[in-house]
Amino acid sequence: MSEQHEDRAQDHVEDSLKQVMEIIARHRLVESLVHKQDMPRHELVETLVHKQNLSELAHKLDELHPADVAYILEALPPEDRIMVWDLVKSERDGEILLEVSDAVRESLIATMDNRELVAAAAGLDTDEIADLAADLPKDVVQELMESLDEAKRAQVASSLSYDEESVGALMDYDFVTIRADVTLEVALRYLRRLGDLPSHTDKLFVVDRDEVLIGTLPLKRLLIHDQDAHVAAVMSDDPVVFHPSDPGTDAAQAFERYDLVSAPIVDAKGKLVGRLTVDVVMDFIRAEAEEDMLQAAGLREEEDLFSTVWKAAKNRWLWLGINLCTALFASRVVGAFEGSIEKLAALAALMPIVAGMGGNSGSQTLTLMVRGMALNLISKENYKRLLVKELGIALLNGVVWGSMMGLVTYFLYQNTDLALVMSGAMLLSLIVAAFAGFIAPLAIVRMGHDPAFGAHVLLTFITDSMGFLIFLGLATFFLL
Amino acid sequence: MSEQHEDRAQDHVEDSLKQVMEIIARHRLVESLVHKQDMPRHELVETLVHKQNLSELAHKLDELHPADVAYILEALPPEDRIMVWDLVKSERDGEILLEVSDAVRESLIATMDNRELVAAAAGLDTDEIADLAADLPKDVVQELMESLDEAKRAQVASSLSYDEESVGALMDYDFVTIRADVTLEVALRYLRRLGDLPSHTDKLFVVDRDEVLIGTLPLKRLLIHDQDAHVAAVMSDDPVVFHPSDPGTDAAQAFERYDLVSAPIVDAKGKLVGRLTVDVVMDFIRAEAEEDMLQAAGLREEEDLFSTVWKAAKNRWLWLGINLCTALFASRVVGAFEGSIEKLAALAALMPIVAGMGGNSGSQTLTLMVRGMALNLISKENYKRLLVKELGIALLNGVVWGSMMGLVTYFLYQNTDLALVMSGAMLLSLIVAAFAGFIAPLAIVRMGHDPAFGAHVLLTFITDSMGFLIFLGLATFFLL
Repeated sequence: MSEQHEDRAQDHVEDSLKQVMEIIARHRLVESLVHKQDMPRHELVETLVHKQNLSELAHKLDELHPADVAYILEALPPEDRIMVWDLVKSERDGEILLEVSDAVRESLIATMDNRELVAAAAGLDTDEIADLAADLPKDVVQELMESLDEAKRAQVASSLSYDEESVGALMDYDFVTIRADVTLEVALRYLRRLGDLPSHTDKLFVVDRDEVLIGTLPLKRLLIHDQDAHVAAVMSDDPVVFHPSDPGTDAAQAFERYDLVSAPIVDAKGKLVGRLTVDVVMDFIRAEAEEDMLQAAGLREEEDLFSTVWKAAKNRWLWLGINLCTALFASRVVGAFEGSIEKLAALAALMPIVAGMGGNSGSQTLTLMVRGMALNLISKENYKRLLVKELGIALLNGVVWGSMMGLVTYFLYQNTDLALVMSGAMLLSLIVAAFAGFIAPLAIVRMGHDPAFGAHVLLTFITDSMGFLIFLGLATFFLL
Repeated sequence: MSEQHEDRAQDHVEDSLKQVMEIIARHRLVESLVHKQDMPRHELVETLVHKQNLSELAHKLDELHPADVAYILEALPPEDRIMVWDLVKSERDGEILLEVSDAVRESLIATMDNRELVAAAAGLDTDEIADLAADLPKDVVQELMESLDEAKRAQVASSLSYDEESVGALMDYDFVTIRADVTLEVALRYLRRLGDLPSHTDKLFVVDRDEVLIGTLPLKRLLIHDQDAHVAAVMSDDPVVFHPSDPGTDAAQAFERYDLVSAPIVDAKGKLVGRLTVDVVMDFIRAEAEEDMLQAAGLREEEDLFSTVWKAAKNRWLWLGINLCTALFASRVVGAFEGSIEKLAALAALMPIVAGMGGNSGSQTLTLMVRGMALNLISKENYKRLLVKELGIALLNGVVWGSMMGLVTYFLYQNTDLALVMSGAMLLSLIVAAFAGFIAPLAIVRMGHDPAFGAHVLLTFITDSMGFLIFLGLATFFLL
């Protein structure tokens, strides 16, 4: 699998999708022609053209990298997707299932029986089996575990025992170890005897008799140094190491910061237990960024582009429901001032501007806070300073945009008092919004969640309700 | 630089920041004590304690990886940041400038004179000089270019000529080439003679007499195969290659898809011109994700956490201004119905709910579209199907949430007609929102921008204005 990609040019991926779609279209055309002529279905299957199309398609799929087949499956609507999936050689099922998104994986697994699933997973590495296990039916996992030898079963079980966001869940067990007291020549001979190296091997792990990690030997040094030198003299003896319980995000930051390709993972006693590689880290970073993006938009999880309406709606209801509640609350704030609005309907036209500007500037503060927290830049020592800065910006913005809206309001309604109330309300609600954008992610972290989780909903709740309250309250007090 | 990180454990980064902050605090304490005693400033500099603190700090900084110094600089407020920056050994300035964010880089460069800047940049690789050049004063760039030899100058000039988002801007010129007709033994001897390999070298590039790329030789194969074999027999002859003009996002997808560590870059004639490595790709992915996040929140660019209020405000004004315009437009829509609102103030309380739900469900559709477009999953063949699905979900949501809001409205106001108008308006505005969320990113791409660019502003503009128009329009028509 690791070699395959090197013989594949990436320009071809989109072309491949087009070709697959064309073959499918031809296939569907034949089907519909046959259907019109009322040919019985079993005769259709016998049709020469039909067979040709399918074998051309199967051949095309065989040529593609698993990740490219995955891409094609993602881009096809359900019935075409299942047709293509059935044409994929069963020994490739496992690696392709690993490449597709969770939502599409579910739809593919649903078309397979237990025997097929066990066969698909059995060909994978233990860390890959663990990745897949979460989406497999329980009896399939059980059957699969029974088919593994004891060492592998222990590896799968240990992978499954770690938190999904931890280094333990990302590690693999595919690494090459070597002793410190051998020469580089011996090391090279050993590698040649192995006949293959795990993908992303840029260093060997140097361990002692008890499998305790004592250093790493970059392949680079192995290649360049005198072959008579000992590993101990050439190795790096203070490498970046991780523990299985480390948060994945910390490991991702270390990979970015130190430009790592692979790194050893050790247990509390320093014993080597696994390896983390840059490809897995990159997938993790992408998945985390995507999750943040989906959450910010109020989607519970990744959604198959072609999922059914019903399934998609369920994915979206939680946040729409929460949003309805917060909107209802803001609506009741306005409701409390219905008397004022009856007297001066202009208030109804102006109030969304106050709430909207608060929401937008609050979200600017919020985003910088979330970014700063993700990068560990915000500490006890500096957060007060940041709050002062954000409040300062809010004050400046309040004066600038408040004055401007005051002028606009005067221009629209020729009412000086209303214009002054508008200016004041803008100023106050921008300050409240800055405070809310600053405090919301901190509060959410205090509650034990990721700072991005629901922060925007909480912010909008505050800026809407407070924006309406401030504007309508000031108006009622000063104008009526 | 490439070796350094291997001797550094990542757990220490945050501890280092704390230690640095402690030393600075001690230093500031001495300063303030001295200040209170009215000791002249030149005597302070002579103070023993003062000197000790600074030398301890400088020593601490020398020990740290450039990326860790960069992290500390990001986390410190301006005056402390400049103090730390002055203590960094000048030969390390260049690599640290590369690691900090654009905003902080600007603040550091502002404290350096031309001579220091030229010295800092001169020690870097040509691709790194090109990265830095955008932020340097023009005369510094000129002086720098003159100090380079012809080959390097050409490389910098060519790096600068490519679009910032293209593979050309990401490539480096640090790679090892080899001929196909030599044996692996010769190749190994050649590497040993080189004495060092560029970082992230997982393969050698096999070229012919005219520097045309004919294959790649993974180090793995070099290590494992018989030393008497020829490179031609062992190499991979159809590797993934890129062109300097390829979009960076395509290359990033290929790196993720095929789990690459490095890849050759060739010109139109197939001649090897550069190399792309996974660490640069990972930084690119992170930067793109960050840019999307900042844009979604209405921030023009990355902002130094400790920038001045004035500078930060300017970063935020463009989007706040645009938001004010769209909010003003929505406000005029409401303004057109002021007569209706005077008669029935409940309309003012209910209208934000309609607009808010539209905005939220539209943003769900928008986010899935942007994601699908980023992954090239949306094509001429399937976009109609997606539109139908999104409209289907909107219909379902409209019925569900519309009925619910109808009931709530009846409960609040005991007005059946108002409840029916509320239900109908919710249904219609959710459908409009789905359509807007679907069309907005397509329209923005048609205008030549990134789909995420301003899509949310456009969406909110439509959902707010249309939400108000639909609800108040229906109410005016049926109730008054």
